[in-house]
Amino acid sequence: MRMIDLLSNRVSRIQWSPIEEVSSLMSGRRDVINLASGLPDPRYMPVDLMSELMCEVYEKYGREVLSYPGAYGLDVLREEIKRFLERHRVNTKGRDVIITCGAQHAVSAIARAFLEDNDKYADENQTFVETLIALKYYSENCIPVSVNSSGLDVRELEKVSREGIKALYVIPNAQNPTGISYSDDVRREIARISEEVGFVIIEDDPYGPIVSERPNPIANATKNTIYVGSFSKILAPGLRVGFMLVPEEVLDAIGMTMQLDFATHPPSMYVLYEALRRGIVDSVLRNVRRVYREKTKLVLSVLEDTMPEGVEWTRPRTSFHLMIFTNGINAREILEEAYRRGVVFVPGDLFYVRSPRHDSLRISISYPTEKEIETGVKILADVIKSQA
Amino acid sequence: MRMIDLLSNRVSRIQWSPIEEVSSLMSGRRDVINLASGLPDPRYMPVDLMSELMCEVYEKYGREVLSYPGAYGLDVLREEIKRFLERHRVNTKGRDVIITCGAQHAVSAIARAFLEDNDKYADENQTFVETLIALKYYSENCIPVSVNSSGLDVRELEKVSREGIKALYVIPNAQNPTGISYSDDVRREIARISEEVGFVIIEDDPYGPIVSERPNPIANATKNTIYVGSFSKILAPGLRVGFMLVPEEVLDAIGMTMQLDFATHPPSMYVLYEALRRGIVDSVLRNVRRVYREKTKLVLSVLEDTMPEGVEWTRPRTSFHLMIFTNGINAREILEEAYRRGVVFVPGDLFYVRSPRHDSLRISISYPTEKEIETGVKILADVIKSQA
Repeated sequence: MRMIDLLSNRVSRIQWSPIEEVSSLMSGRRDVINLASGLPDPRYMPVDLMSELMCEVYEKYGREVLSYPGAYGLDVLREEIKRFLERHRVNTKGRDVIITCGAQHAVSAIARAFLEDNDKYADENQTFVETLIALKYYSENCIPVSVNSSGLDVRELEKVSREGIKALYVIPNAQNPTGISYSDDVRREIARISEEVGFVIIEDDPYGPIVSERPNPIANATKNTIYVGSFSKILAPGLRVGFMLVPEEVLDAIGMTMQLDFATHPPSMYVLYEALRRGIVDSVLRNVRRVYREKTKLVLSVLEDTMPEGVEWTRPRTSFHLMIFTNGINAREILEEAYRRGVVFVPGDLFYVRSPRHDSLRISISYPTEKEIETGVKILADVIKSQA
Repeated sequence: MRMIDLLSNRVSRIQWSPIEEVSSLMSGRRDVINLASGLPDPRYMPVDLMSELMCEVYEKYGREVLSYPGAYGLDVLREEIKRFLERHRVNTKGRDVIITCGAQHAVSAIARAFLEDNDKYADENQTFVETLIALKYYSENCIPVSVNSSGLDVRELEKVSREGIKALYVIPNAQNPTGISYSDDVRREIARISEEVGFVIIEDDPYGPIVSERPNPIANATKNTIYVGSFSKILAPGLRVGFMLVPEEVLDAIGMTMQLDFATHPPSMYVLYEALRRGIVDSVLRNVRRVYREKTKLVLSVLEDTMPEGVEWTRPRTSFHLMIFTNGINAREILEEAYRRGVVFVPGDLFYVRSPRHDSLRISISYPTEKEIETGVKILADVIKSQA
């Protein structure tokens, strides 16, 4: 017997995330400018604060910290997250919080709870490749919908949704990879179409709290939404606490499915509970909002100054990422040369569900310093010029 | 639209774990003797040590502790776990470790990687209800195989396996709920049948390291095994670090599926790494082995002294759990009266895949003190006598 022959056919639907691949490319090279990773800026990660809180919760809650988590996660934290959401304009009425191990775990759990092999669902073209992997694992029937400068193309969604989709996945704030935030109109239209046709909206919002100028979430406009959030981008990814805000109607059913892995982490849940309760999260937020807004402004101005004629890019206001389109020059060839010159990014074709543009680059500005952003983008511009 | 109507049909295959239900029954009642929960004895959980290590790893590894985990988990910990397994007689040759968020997450990931809707697999009758939920979610086609005093009934397995099973799930050490450890012969027979017929053995071994008198694992007798382990029962459940030891042949494929949730927890992985490296895990183990062996001896002697004629029970040597069969008296009626008198346990019928015995009780002795075990079992005996 070969064990590999017994694997589920679902496994053949997925591949390694390019982000995982670039990470392994980078390992051991600290001299490289990292425009590939969506890690938050390490200079603003409250490591000491997290460390202190971690020590403290062990002292304060003793053995409870080391006990099994329930399927919904720590109740006092669920309440604190609801208060956090209310402060940040997310309507929690008639909904409840289920805690997860990061937003990725939440999206995966939603896919697991709703999608079966032949179910149709819509996704952004382009979108975050790792959540797409989770969705595709449960059903291959993914229908891409274009993203333009005001967000999802709602006319296209309207057409696609009539084919009988069960779900729509969207990242309305600082969309990954484009950095675009959906306009208020687009959000309302998505809500309206969902109400008319009847499908679940998976509103993935890891960046929302960081984007101060954002419109209200889609969740405020329709009950058909499961809103997903995370504290990975605000505090630290290693905390591994995310959540979903689900309508009461499906709380029990989705809660039951969380028993499949019981993958929440009690010490982290206590740390986050304390961080929220004491206002630490909101105070970190005020700081990092400014940081990422300034970095976004910076990269846009460096692009303007350095890129040759014909190269285009998305223009977010606050974002971790943006996309560059090189007008025909292959991104992998650019990457090869850029890597030699000490810069990495993720080729943009990997974020497409369909019709990939091989001349697109995802540029992430969350991790590098301002100086690195300047140098990195200049090197990219040089490489593009040399290959034009 | 009702969101509940869009849920996957798989959701209807599962229910709340009785252990979750009893936990909520118990919440707020600290006066109750808990013979229901499989929590390790809190008196021997190294809370202070874990707490110190947690503070230390933040200082020592700084930001790395708060970064994203890779799909396989922390590499240095993977190596330490391999060494741990070798010390505890698990052959790791030609295999590699994937870290998970507890053993439950590992079993769930294995089910996700192998089982599709109509796939047949075999499971112990009775077995651990929570891993059964994870398996059933991916396929309903579960074929139960009886468990007797030397482990799985291998003649029955031989017959069942000819029906074309893809996998077999077993807990060969201190089986949950019966407490039985499979004999060496039964393990070899399972390996032989798997080699002949061709199916994956999911060898779930959360208790193995605690049972000193155990034979070698099935994994040592056949490459067809995925061996699952955890540190929840040795150190603390809240650590949420488990693992699977997989043949190299499927390492890449299963690793890819771990991207679906990225549910491992970096701080805990560093804590466990340090605990293993410094010999803390082995030293805790030497202690708790003795504790659970003595507690098992105690409960057997109290049962002998107190239970009326006709009542039977399993006779583990070292275990967290055992089963009592009351010769016809309904376990739920016993539970109702026992709860009034301050004792809870889990009705045994919930652990059966098929043909549940409603006169069976799972008694867990891991959590309560010796005094509580004595009092609790005496109360149960009284209740059984009064209902006979």
